[in-house]
Amino acid sequence: MDVEKLLSQTVLNSWKSVNQRVSALIAQMSEENIQFEIAPGRNRALYIVGHLTAVSDRMFPLLGVGERRFPNLDAVYLEHPDRTAADPLAPADLKAAWQDLAARLTDALEAFTPDEWLQKHTAVSDADFVKEPSRNRMAVVLARTNHISYHMGQLMLAQNPR
Amino acid sequence: MDVEKLLSQTVLNSWKSVNQRVSALIAQMSEENIQFEIAPGRNRALYIVGHLTAVSDRMFPLLGVGERRFPNLDAVYLEHPDRTAADPLAPADLKAAWQDLAARLTDALEAFTPDEWLQKHTAVSDADFVKEPSRNRMAVVLARTNHISYHMGQLMLAQNPR
Repeated sequence: MDVEKLLSQTVLNSWKSVNQRVSALIAQMSEENIQFEIAPGRNRALYIVGHLTAVSDRMFPLLGVGERRFPNLDAVYLEHPDRTAADPLAPADLKAAWQDLAARLTDALEAFTPDEWLQKHTAVSDADFVKEPSRNRMAVVLARTNHISYHMGQLMLAQNPR
Repeated sequence: MDVEKLLSQTVLNSWKSVNQRVSALIAQMSEENIQFEIAPGRNRALYIVGHLTAVSDRMFPLLGVGERRFPNLDAVYLEHPDRTAADPLAPADLKAAWQDLAARLTDALEAFTPDEWLQKHTAVSDADFVKEPSRNRMAVVLARTNHISYHMGQLMLAQNPR
């Protein structure tokens, strides 16, 4: 495998590894423990799952790989703090939404060539991209992978509350 | 900039971004709030900083870029749970150790060419590396970047305890 292909594959593997871990964590959450808070007075696990799902959903237009499916999550899980708006989906439906997005996003990333990884994301202008070619799709995917890890560290705390 | 150089640069930028964020968070922790728990009965912020410092210290031999400086952190912050062993460094010294390691690791990564990013890390055998070329230095750096993000999500909870 050539250098640029192997570099891209290594980044893809990191995305897949993190997504597999958090997907397994979300899949095993019961109706009860998805309602647990990560700490007293902090976000519920459910809120964090909604937040991650909204952010992954927004990756489709950002990367130019498709339309969003769950735009109604943004108001509750991106624009408001937890417990200030009604959850738009039942926990089982939210969990299914996450799994659907994670699988379809990974399929889209699997298809990128090295050059396609380096194309600009849709939130940067052509003029800015000329000056800053590092504002590419790979940068988005790396930032989102770390965003998932950040919240996974919190979700773990809701699994065995003290 | 050519494709393989730009791909490597994008990964390096992600490492730098995450390290800058967590380094700023650690730098502003007071003697008092580094002792806060991330949640009642959970790890202290200090323990997590010790854990991250030990893991970053171990990256030098793993990536083949130098010797460790703080091997005495492992027993306390990797092998034992929090509050079961005495902290080997004062908080100010631990914070300084983190900043030192983060800066020197970043310097080492800045110097990697694309081919050097794809060299094997020292915990994989030559035979295994032939079969799995994705077990390279970049894979280690991506995994460690996500590990930092995971714990940063927890450290944030200790900043304004409830």
